[in-house]
Amino acid sequence: MELLTTNNVWMMICTALVFFMHLGFALLEIGLTRQKNTLNILFKNIFIITMGLLLYCLVGFNLMYPGEFNGVLGFAGFGLDAPLTTEGALDLTYNAGYTYWTDFLFQGMFAATAATIVSGAVAERMKIGPFMVFAILYVGLIYPIAGSWKWGGGFLQTLETPFYDFAGSTLVHSVGGWAALVAVCLLGARIGKFKDGKIQAIPGHNIPLATAGVLILWLGWFGFNGGSVLSADPALTSLVLVTTCLAAAAGGVVAALVSAIKFKNLDLTMFLNGILGGLVGITAGADQMSPLDAIVIGAIAGIIIVFAVSLIDRLRLDDPVGAIAVHLVCGIWGTLAVGIFGNLAGGAQFVSQLIGVASYAGICIVSSFVILFIMKKTVGIRVSEIEEIEGLDAHEHGMEAYPNFRMNDN
Amino acid sequence: MELLTTNNVWMMICTALVFFMHLGFALLEIGLTRQKNTLNILFKNIFIITMGLLLYCLVGFNLMYPGEFNGVLGFAGFGLDAPLTTEGALDLTYNAGYTYWTDFLFQGMFAATAATIVSGAVAERMKIGPFMVFAILYVGLIYPIAGSWKWGGGFLQTLETPFYDFAGSTLVHSVGGWAALVAVCLLGARIGKFKDGKIQAIPGHNIPLATAGVLILWLGWFGFNGGSVLSADPALTSLVLVTTCLAAAAGGVVAALVSAIKFKNLDLTMFLNGILGGLVGITAGADQMSPLDAIVIGAIAGIIIVFAVSLIDRLRLDDPVGAIAVHLVCGIWGTLAVGIFGNLAGGAQFVSQLIGVASYAGICIVSSFVILFIMKKTVGIRVSEIEEIEGLDAHEHGMEAYPNFRMNDN
Amino acid sequence: MELLTTNNVWMMICTALVFFMHLGFALLEIGLTRQKNTLNILFKNIFIITMGLLLYCLVGFNLMYPGEFNGVLGFAGFGLDAPLTTEGALDLTYNAGYTYWTDFLFQGMFAATAATIVSGAVAERMKIGPFMVFAILYVGLIYPIAGSWKWGGGFLQTLETPFYDFAGSTLVHSVGGWAALVAVCLLGARIGKFKDGKIQAIPGHNIPLATAGVLILWLGWFGFNGGSVLSADPALTSLVLVTTCLAAAAGGVVAALVSAIKFKNLDLTMFLNGILGGLVGITAGADQMSPLDAIVIGAIAGIIIVFAVSLIDRLRLDDPVGAIAVHLVCGIWGTLAVGIFGNLAGGAQFVSQLIGVASYAGICIVSSFVILFIMKKTVGIRVSEIEEIEGLDAHEHGMEAYPNFRMNDN
Repeated sequence: MELLTTNNVWMMICTALVFFMHLGFALLEIGLTRQKNTLNILFKNIFIITMGLLLYCLVGFNLMYPGEFNGVLGFAGFGLDAPLTTEGALDLTYNAGYTYWTDFLFQGMFAATAATIVSGAVAERMKIGPFMVFAILYVGLIYPIAGSWKWGGGFLQTLETPFYDFAGSTLVHSVGGWAALVAVCLLGARIGKFKDGKIQAIPGHNIPLATAGVLILWLGWFGFNGGSVLSADPALTSLVLVTTCLAAAAGGVVAALVSAIKFKNLDLTMFLNGILGGLVGITAGADQMSPLDAIVIGAIAGIIIVFAVSLIDRLRLDDPVGAIAVHLVCGIWGTLAVGIFGNLAGGAQFVSQLIGVASYAGICIVSSFVILFIMKKTVGIRVSEIEEIEGLDAHEHGMEAYPNFRMNDN
Repeated sequence: MELLTTNNVWMMICTALVFFMHLGFALLEIGLTRQKNTLNILFKNIFIITMGLLLYCLVGFNLMYPGEFNGVLGFAGFGLDAPLTTEGALDLTYNAGYTYWTDFLFQGMFAATAATIVSGAVAERMKIGPFMVFAILYVGLIYPIAGSWKWGGGFLQTLETPFYDFAGSTLVHSVGGWAALVAVCLLGARIGKFKDGKIQAIPGHNIPLATAGVLILWLGWFGFNGGSVLSADPALTSLVLVTTCLAAAAGGVVAALVSAIKFKNLDLTMFLNGILGGLVGITAGADQMSPLDAIVIGAIAGIIIVFAVSLIDRLRLDDPVGAIAVHLVCGIWGTLAVGIFGNLAGGAQFVSQLIGVASYAGICIVSSFVILFIMKKTVGIRVSEIEEIEGLDAHEHGMEAYPNFRMNDN
Repeated sequence: MELLTTNNVWMMICTALVFFMHLGFALLEIGLTRQKNTLNILFKNIFIITMGLLLYCLVGFNLMYPGEFNGVLGFAGFGLDAPLTTEGALDLTYNAGYTYWTDFLFQGMFAATAATIVSGAVAERMKIGPFMVFAILYVGLIYPIAGSWKWGGGFLQTLETPFYDFAGSTLVHSVGGWAALVAVCLLGARIGKFKDGKIQAIPGHNIPLATAGVLILWLGWFGFNGGSVLSADPALTSLVLVTTCLAAAAGGVVAALVSAIKFKNLDLTMFLNGILGGLVGITAGADQMSPLDAIVIGAIAGIIIVFAVSLIDRLRLDDPVGAIAVHLVCGIWGTLAVGIFGNLAGGAQFVSQLIGVASYAGICIVSSFVILFIMKKTVGIRVSEIEEIEGLDAHEHGMEAYPNFRMNDN
């Protein structure tokens, strides 16, 4: 009882920290885009966290953790169904690490993240109605079904050498990242991004808020990874916090260094994305790595970020906040790294990691393509040219984010 | 001992989270008002949290928890008086859920909230000196005396069917809300708010900060409601977090939906106020509700918010941040909902809830009217017209909030 | 085991809170300086927290806690070396309050703080390359060596009456503050600060973010002081939170009051610095004071702040954010206060506190002077006049913090 109480306290705090990541995502996204689309991005983020929780309560939790099932798709019924003792109290034998309620809420906070990643990639040009439809389907159905394959005990968990993803480099970050990639391809680039065959930087309008967003995300990762231990086990939780922080630090420093060498510039945005890349990279194996492993994984993520951002630009893909580089590319890297570094390293594990990455690529690419393509061909997913130029805030929301400030044309 | 330590850790964390709500309130208030009054609002908020803690130490804690008393007014003496063992150490048998120090600090963080609510409602036109006097009297005397009626074991606690207010829909939010209502009536509307018989929207100057404020408040509510369990009881605390988050989500989504239907607009401000309305609404009964109850209570709060904001406008009451709709109207709704939904639902409970609401209406309306009316008739409570037009920052503080930025006239 | 788990949970949360202080510092510093140097300050702060953690992993932790050593300088080897049981698991008998990993990370979060303090003082005119070199040497070597003198069991700990510094008024804040003083002297004032023999105020560009920074720092102090108990001991941790918050409140209120009397102005910046002064002041003895002691210590810090800021100005030292007044002067005050108030008060303790202050003055002044003077005479530490006037963001980073906003010349 004492231990359950402590475990549950830890898990509730981690839940709160993961919730707080939604502020981090929101600030990062608005900071790295133009002021004329700020309200729109905030609206999307607020929509995702609120609707995401309601959907996870309605169907998501029971799609993701269906109990015994065929390993691909199961559903334990609508709504929440807390286990009770014969006296009608909450049955605390549910799990040694947390109560049923904590389990639901912690997992629910994760669920919305996938759509938030997409929100950043499609910023400044996607219609809000279709985005909300996409978010509902992706958070409500695709994320939990995909999640059940591993965390729900599905076929990736029952491989001879089980696929391993501690806290979601693949199950959360790549799931968002694949959809971001598909959406960016279907949407096309923002007006002016690739002009006369050249890549034009479109600077973000509020770098202090973007920076605050990254530090809030890092703080949230204490809960995201720390809570993924699913108890307050002292050795494991504290190791996870150390590997998480060291990977973040290494990712940031290396990305800043590489970009300083490559571009002769001390680029704060790259520094910030390097931190996020390190965090995403360590997430799959944060409990399996030594501090040194974590630094190496983070440092490689830092290198990857710089080259991935360049590559995505050269592929004429327009990802305003670098979501694909951070969440998809570093998510894949972190997942594969579990087969290369740490306690699980080995050929069989590496193959399982590849199977996992491919499986999630499959469900995510197909499902997000189907949803977005149907909407593209029917209601349309891109705002009009005039709306894009004048800003989504004025057209979709009839408000400005900063009405007292004078703005440059942009 | 192990359990006390865990309980106390939880309560300290909740204390920190409730403290952090003051940043949420500050950002929300400045975000929804004009830039020329930003410093003034920040000054008031910083004053409230600092002076509030000192007053709660000096008199508040012992007014609110006087021990045995007549049920209406008691006082256990100035300052803090920690219970000691015969060896002079802190007596840990004080409470199974927390130490004396934690008890004081958790309650102290609540105390300042009431005045903060008023701060938002009177923003952009109230003189700072009289506001500070009001805050001192209201936080130092009225809030704790009113609180003693229920949480201090007073007459509302000793009703045959005791009045129930888990975490303060009435004791905190309505207490602030009633004073906000009185103050708005006595102050009058901002210049330009009701021009030529029409309601003019006066847009807030920094919506990103307002949004951050709401997410910080939501985070803080993990502690506000979670800590009101007064221990880390795993079943209760985790249920409370679930009901709190679901009510917030439902309040937001429904308010956005209703306002989209009513005004043909995706209104972020209404979305945010809907979240806050849901949070205030669930606060009275967060530990007594099922997840479904919580969603219904939050959803109704979301509907209420949209209509209450309109109604308050039509009554020609000028509440720049929607404090009356959020804290007073949803506070009353949440309090009455305890008699309608959940474990305590029933006629007798509903009557007790009405008695509670009426009792707090009485003390709050009378006391805030007396304080503010006396000041209105003597020193005056409203700034001069020129000061209001040019902004309180320049006149009361001689500084600007954003001196490097060019501003529109406003 | 139950108790270790609870203790470790508390310490991990405190670690997260101390990490979050880096956001507080960053926002405070940019808020109190001009927009043209915002990116530069953010870059420095992000550099400090990331590089600081890596350095603390590489050498710092083992310099600061070398085990048995000569009391002045010891080193337990590069990297981390977690104690293992014979079965290869983490040895949990390491400490009753936390695991080896938690110990490292909590201390690592402290380490970066010292350089952050300097960052504020040298803002708007120091070259970033030399600052990074300074930060590496100061965080990587000087801070941990100086820390070993007391917290590592060195000569200040083995005095007959040991020097006392609970959470770092001296070991953290003065260590940063002395270097800030030296750097400010070597750098000189910003252009325009002392024009025609007069002190010119250079207002900060974003007071809302500065205010948010202070409230985030206060929140972080729950972990900074609360975690310095090094366990979740209920009586001690909760007392520490009470003394910390009351000192902050008293510092703020008194600084606002004194500056209102002295300057006839309700100065929010002074209010904020008063809060920080109170926090720094209580840090050395937060576990040894009664609530009343804490209020007195904080109140005196509040008075000190107002006069110290004036004095530093009159000495023609240009400290844009008030770092010297807050961290150095109040750090010394708080350290000496341990000899005057609370459980340890007495002549012998006061002498030990003086010895401690003098020892840290010695190592910090000498080391920071040597590092900075060598760089000044070789590569130079100050940006060119044109760069200072046009802003470090454009010259060192080739970016703007707020590219969509129109700015005044400044």
